Amino acid sequence: MTTRADDAPIADAASLGDLRALVNIELARAFSAEDASVAPLGRAIDYSLLAPGKRIRPVLALAAAEACGMAPAAVAKVGAAFELVHAYSLVHDDLPAMDDDDLRRGVPTSHKVYGEAVAVLVGDALQARAFELVATDDDVTPAARVDVVALLARAAGWRGMVGGQYLDIDESRTDHADLVALRDVHDRKTGALIAGAVEAGAIAAGVDAVQRAAFATFGRELGWLFQLVDDLLDATGSSDALGKTPGKDARDGKVTAVAAFGGVDALCAAVDEQLDRCLEAAGALPDDGGRLPAIARYVHGRDH
Amino acid sequence: MTTRADDAPIADAASLGDLRALVNIELARAFSAEDASVAPLGRAIDYSLLAPGKRIRPVLALAAAEACGMAPAAVAKVGAAFELVHAYSLVHDDLPAMDDDDLRRGVPTSHKVYGEAVAVLVGDALQARAFELVATDDDVTPAARVDVVALLARAAGWRGMVGGQYLDIDESRTDHADLVALRDVHDRKTGALIAGAVEAGAIAAGVDAVQRAAFATFGRELGWLFQLVDDLLDATGSSDALGKTPGKDARDGKVTAVAAFGGVDALCAAVDEQLDRCLEAAGALPDDGGRLPAIARYVHGRDH
Repeated sequence: MTTRADDAPIADAASLGDLRALVNIELARAFSAEDASVAPLGRAIDYSLLAPGKRIRPVLALAAAEACGMAPAAVAKVGAAFELVHAYSLVHDDLPAMDDDDLRRGVPTSHKVYGEAVAVLVGDALQARAFELVATDDDVTPAARVDVVALLARAAGWRGMVGGQYLDIDESRTDHADLVALRDVHDRKTGALIAGAVEAGAIAAGVDAVQRAAFATFGRELGWLFQLVDDLLDATGSSDALGKTPGKDARDGKVTAVAAFGGVDALCAAVDEQLDRCLEAAGALPDDGGRLPAIARYVHGRDH
Repeated sequence: MTTRADDAPIADAASLGDLRALVNIELARAFSAEDASVAPLGRAIDYSLLAPGKRIRPVLALAAAEACGMAPAAVAKVGAAFELVHAYSLVHDDLPAMDDDDLRRGVPTSHKVYGEAVAVLVGDALQARAFELVATDDDVTPAARVDVVALLARAAGWRGMVGGQYLDIDESRTDHADLVALRDVHDRKTGALIAGAVEAGAIAAGVDAVQRAAFATFGRELGWLFQLVDDLLDATGSSDALGKTPGKDARDGKVTAVAAFGGVDALCAAVDEQLDRCLEAAGALPDDGGRLPAIARYVHGRDH
């Protein structure tokens, strides 16, 4: 895989820093403890929510809104909602009954620190608050807020993220190297929320149905790029780069792109091709997608 | 406790049957499986969601809308959303790491049938779909839907139902017989969703802020009545009436109203007084609350 340094500037942490800063302010506020009796629960939630992360989902929502001419700050709550859902999914996926992970983003997982019962509640509370943030984003029209709530719920729910996790832990499945099955699981588990974040930013900015579909297409291509890169890092990367144990997915017998594509080299080529699809899809967006193509390059090039 | 048969007709199952039927149709539709790969997850969700129940929360939402002159069918999705959140809370509360219950509504709990991992996902999916139902209730204005989403999220979230469950499982607490602490836990864990259902029905019907507050007051009084009766049944009732093991809460060292009020007789008197508060609050509602006072009598008189 080339680094594409010759092609166009790769967005680095600094060039997205303004969007991340807007998001981090919302995240820090989401469970601030004016309510003394549940303040300890708020701190347990903050432990997972405020752990350092790339905030890729909310940054995508803000960048999509910006490409439509809306100030990113106006959709900060909408963006933050996608991070809350992502954070809840990590806390629940890490549970002993699920993936049983002790380490996440380089620190002990919620259930290791607070116990399983609190970790279940942390995830449940994060999900509820996500929808509250969307519903109370006063800079967005009520009609658009309703559309974003429906979109987030679909992306997160039984046909989306939760459905993907269900398929991922289904030990009766034998199609681990089948590309169609792999993409079905990943489109639900990871892709739906990434694509949803892009589309939500555009909805919040008040785009029409045609533009909304174009953002959705870009989002789906980016979600697949994201997952291919993640699987590549799982096969080749270090624990530091991933923030989790490399090779674990493959050892757990889970669907992986390396197996589906027939090796690391073939997967590298697929990752490059997938970036091209993202950039092509961005061409159909207002303002050529604004900062979205740069984010696609950032996803493509991260840590390798 | 008197039966109050001399006072006014008590709503029985039949007189609320039309509202329950509207709700049950929405519940049966919520996870219908046009999506083959996640159909098994839909069936696991239906196992918990469609188990026989009183549907008290959605019935309250529909009755509140009806009292405001809106057709109950128009808020069926809003009502069903509260049942989905209630159902998710039961599935997660029953988990081994939480209350570790094997029996719910007379049948084995979700985690006993499908395993812990699927039970976590069942609850997660129920919560997401609840918000999707509210957001897609086309008979309700977008502005009202946004308000209901925010209300449901607050009622279900870290300061509401999840916060109450957090306080309930906190073994470091020593205020089990303290009435203020008891009501704080119960108002969050149970009251918020019951009061929220009443208020949501009124919001969906488009009431003004003054009427909204009156419905919220009635809902809070009813939520407390509901919990006092539940604690009374826990102390005196049978497994059949409760659908769960009686006396378990007290044996688990949890906050109970019997201890806080100083015995069963004192609690019986408190239950009667609380019904009077509900009926008084209903007097401030449009159409004297329609069927809401009858529902309060039904909650007061159920199974005893």
